[in-house]
Amino acid sequence: MVKKLKRLFPLIVILELIMLSELTIKEFLEKIASGLPTPGGGSVAALSAALAASLAEMVANLTIGKQGSGDVQDEMKAVAQDALRLKNKFVSAIDKDSNAYNDVITAIKLPGDTKAEKRHREEMIQSGLKQATLVPMAVAEDAIRVMELAGKTVTKGNKNTITDGAVGVMMAKTAVLSALYNVKINLRTIKDKAFIDEISKQVKELEQNALQREKELLSNIDL
Amino acid sequence: MVKKLKRLFPLIVILELIMLSELTIKEFLEKIASGLPTPGGGSVAALSAALAASLAEMVANLTIGKQGSGDVQDEMKAVAQDALRLKNKFVSAIDKDSNAYNDVITAIKLPGDTKAEKRHREEMIQSGLKQATLVPMAVAEDAIRVMELAGKTVTKGNKNTITDGAVGVMMAKTAVLSALYNVKINLRTIKDKAFIDEISKQVKELEQNALQREKELLSNIDL
Repeated sequence: MVKKLKRLFPLIVILELIMLSELTIKEFLEKIASGLPTPGGGSVAALSAALAASLAEMVANLTIGKQGSGDVQDEMKAVAQDALRLKNKFVSAIDKDSNAYNDVITAIKLPGDTKAEKRHREEMIQSGLKQATLVPMAVAEDAIRVMELAGKTVTKGNKNTITDGAVGVMMAKTAVLSALYNVKINLRTIKDKAFIDEISKQVKELEQNALQREKELLSNIDL
Repeated sequence: MVKKLKRLFPLIVILELIMLSELTIKEFLEKIASGLPTPGGGSVAALSAALAASLAEMVANLTIGKQGSGDVQDEMKAVAQDALRLKNKFVSAIDKDSNAYNDVITAIKLPGDTKAEKRHREEMIQSGLKQATLVPMAVAEDAIRVMELAGKTVTKGNKNTITDGAVGVMMAKTAVLSALYNVKINLRTIKDKAFIDEISKQVKELEQNALQREKELLSNIDL
């Protein structure tokens, strides 16, 4: 799709106007592998969470309406709905994460010849870094929710698709930890002490929670 | 792209002729979430491994040619090359996994009225299940290799992209465990005892190896 557009309009800008989620899987993989820093681990974390949400939605959909699923119908409908809503957030975050990183790079390249320029540049870098921290923080928080949704499909969903729910739990947990790596590396260059303290506390809680819940949720699978 | 083709040729078969990796990310996510069993956790495992390989390739590419990278140049070139080769295998496996599963379903639907039909049906199911086991086994074995490649980029790659290497390690490890869940569920319905024994032994080794190596490889990151 992108290749065709590029043939028709041979301007690199075309590629940038297209959202990452509109690329084919092959194109997205190539774009990661290329010698540019974005998209990188942050966007991959968001995609991992989106894949997890889709798996939870799939198992819920494969449970609803099946014989013997009467007592979990409503719960599975709610899982499918929540998973869809979160998936859409993650899809946006694939781009948001890369854009936030690029904004920091743009700020770093601002002129810093005069005192005023230097101050402006530093402010832009710092606010860019905060945004580049808050995007993966939101991904991590939402991905924990997807762990719970996928976990529900493991215990209450269609038994034939139990491994799909399990893969969902693991992909969501990987999304949490991957997003938090990106948070932590940004905290190293942020100067606002109160911001660092608040986020660091949340990071520790989310990390512990993700590790603990993964163990518990997967313990329901006997393979 | 697929939507356009479907408008032009309103036959469902169009969708099946297009490889999953040719779908956009959004389309792939929708296809997982739909009420069909494929693509599911097996294809997601292969994609997770492909994403990990792309991250390893990216960090290697961002290291090659950079100042001070003289002594790791050759190693990073080898990492980029190996990661690219494995990524292409994973991209094929995204489809192979779904196709193998669909072949089992097709076999299950074969007629079983006569004794000969029953025997043929059972043979087709069993050979289908073996193929559906060997595809994720290969993904798991290759994904362990990607863990090592991503691990090398963490210790020897560009320090600015250390979290991308770390996310690569985690996505590759998740690919290993996810693929192995799919192996284990298939083993439950395979009847060839020798096959089960051999694969089960390999599964245990791969699982332990993945968990152990993840700990070791990520211990090199201080964030």
